[in-house]
Amino acid sequence: MTQPPSDAHEFDLIERIRRRVHSRDDVVLGIGDDAALLKVPAGQLLVVAMDTLNAGVHFPDDTAAADVGWKSLAVNLSDLAAMGAEPAWCTLSLSLPDGDTRWVDGFLDGFLELAHAHGVALVGGDTTRGPLSISVTVHGFVAPGRALRRDAARVDDDVWVSGTPGDAAGALVQWRERTVRDAFLRSRLDRPTPRLTLGAALADVANACIDVSDGLLADLAHVCRASKVGARIELDRLPASDALRVAFDEAHRQTLQATGGDDYELCFTASPDLRDEIERIALGTGTPVTRIGRIEAGEGARAFDARGRLWQPGRAGYQHFA
Amino acid sequence: MTQPPSDAHEFDLIERIRRRVHSRDDVVLGIGDDAALLKVPAGQLLVVAMDTLNAGVHFPDDTAAADVGWKSLAVNLSDLAAMGAEPAWCTLSLSLPDGDTRWVDGFLDGFLELAHAHGVALVGGDTTRGPLSISVTVHGFVAPGRALRRDAARVDDDVWVSGTPGDAAGALVQWRERTVRDAFLRSRLDRPTPRLTLGAALADVANACIDVSDGLLADLAHVCRASKVGARIELDRLPASDALRVAFDEAHRQTLQATGGDDYELCFTASPDLRDEIERIALGTGTPVTRIGRIEAGEGARAFDARGRLWQPGRAGYQHFA
Repeated sequence: MTQPPSDAHEFDLIERIRRRVHSRDDVVLGIGDDAALLKVPAGQLLVVAMDTLNAGVHFPDDTAAADVGWKSLAVNLSDLAAMGAEPAWCTLSLSLPDGDTRWVDGFLDGFLELAHAHGVALVGGDTTRGPLSISVTVHGFVAPGRALRRDAARVDDDVWVSGTPGDAAGALVQWRERTVRDAFLRSRLDRPTPRLTLGAALADVANACIDVSDGLLADLAHVCRASKVGARIELDRLPASDALRVAFDEAHRQTLQATGGDDYELCFTASPDLRDEIERIALGTGTPVTRIGRIEAGEGARAFDARGRLWQPGRAGYQHFA
Repeated sequence: MTQPPSDAHEFDLIERIRRRVHSRDDVVLGIGDDAALLKVPAGQLLVVAMDTLNAGVHFPDDTAAADVGWKSLAVNLSDLAAMGAEPAWCTLSLSLPDGDTRWVDGFLDGFLELAHAHGVALVGGDTTRGPLSISVTVHGFVAPGRALRRDAARVDDDVWVSGTPGDAAGALVQWRERTVRDAFLRSRLDRPTPRLTLGAALADVANACIDVSDGLLADLAHVCRASKVGARIELDRLPASDALRVAFDEAHRQTLQATGGDDYELCFTASPDLRDEIERIALGTGTPVTRIGRIEAGEGARAFDARGRLWQPGRAGYQHFA
């Protein structure tokens, strides 16, 4: 606005995006009008989440364009997974310092790879000039009463986590220290796996659920606050990847696992009666899950070491912001 | 991420926002979980639009926080108006360089004033650290077949516009030139009026519709391209505010009116048989509308002066991006 650009880049860019997107039968009108027109299935609730990634804040500046594209959708789909919802559509707002079409093409490679894998249609959004920033809004469905919420944990529930938390935080430490950089850990930072199949399968089984974006203890504390309960985590139960075990000593690793963010794994609670059922779901969806603790009366999420001592993290929990 | 902030500002900020929002009966779950749960009325299409405002690009750096809040929602509601949709919910992603709570409170003053005026519930979003940027996604409803689209203009339709286009562009010129700054014009730049009542009333009457964000001729050209028609605008029919007439000579004013952006007025087309009906709607909704031209066979949107000569703008059309 303060400096009107000289040409019609915005329309080129939107056309560039439109050419590559897939549609769905429930998209009445997609990219190209003032708004999208969409059909929500009768009897389903609409589920909406919105997350933004800023360059240098949410991803290292050296992140490949395709990985930025993947991650910007993945962190949003992870929110739908944590609700037990089935994804359907997304909108994308892309702020770019210049009209670098090669970067945009790379970004779309990663973004659309993940969108197409989950049958998600990109139906609209915005392209603007500004510091590199990506906002995505995702839309999905869930049957009323099936949604996994933060406020439904019950005393004596088991606490479970998917995957191997700590990997993304480990990659960040390696990136900051500029020493060894493990490719597996970095891939967990750049290309998190939204646990959509697991989340949907858990909708009938789990009580509370959240995705681990701020750190396991911090996110579990959100569940505790909303559910008015406490949680106890056994540190030596936390499932760790081989890469993380090799790269960090035990104390550092446990800190990364308990407080590191950006894993986008699901942390959920369920009745101990349902352990077999949850193991079956894990097997059926190909998603490893591990029982790591218990919900108890009280408040806050605390971790205990192998000797039953209350654990204090080596560094502060992970905070996106401010 | 590269510099984890030192405290729990994000949660404070979200709580600060949550305390001030109104809800609606169709919001099953709003701010505070991984995603919002919403009820779409049976038989209605969901209408979704997303727009981003970046500081220094979409608003002058000296814009008051409340005006930034108002405008970031207004430009989105304007997209719903252009579809003839009824607004319902929004999500907000706010990127801030620091946790300036006074700025956030001011921003919310403007944002929520407009939201509450139209019964729109803020149901979720994100707060991140980064250069000042606001992304909003709005959700509304429209009955199938009633939506106003860009691709429905027909040859011999009248072309209409609401309000007095050019005011926002006039304010920008005054802001850039740092001379006289008219408060009325500035208010049209900072606090555009989303024409929701007009848009909804036109849904049964108008053929095509678009909101004027990039400039009247540029946006009408989008309608022409989508509808495979041409458009002819009579320059001396363009309705101008007194403030704009006083501030600019005729040639400059006409350029601002035909090519200036950021007015968020509705430009729509309708059969000449419906002129009386449209005048009644304008009166009933308290929104001035003016007939400014005609749809014809061909392509592109062109303007003609009082002597019937093809008009050439004094400067290039307004482009947000790049």
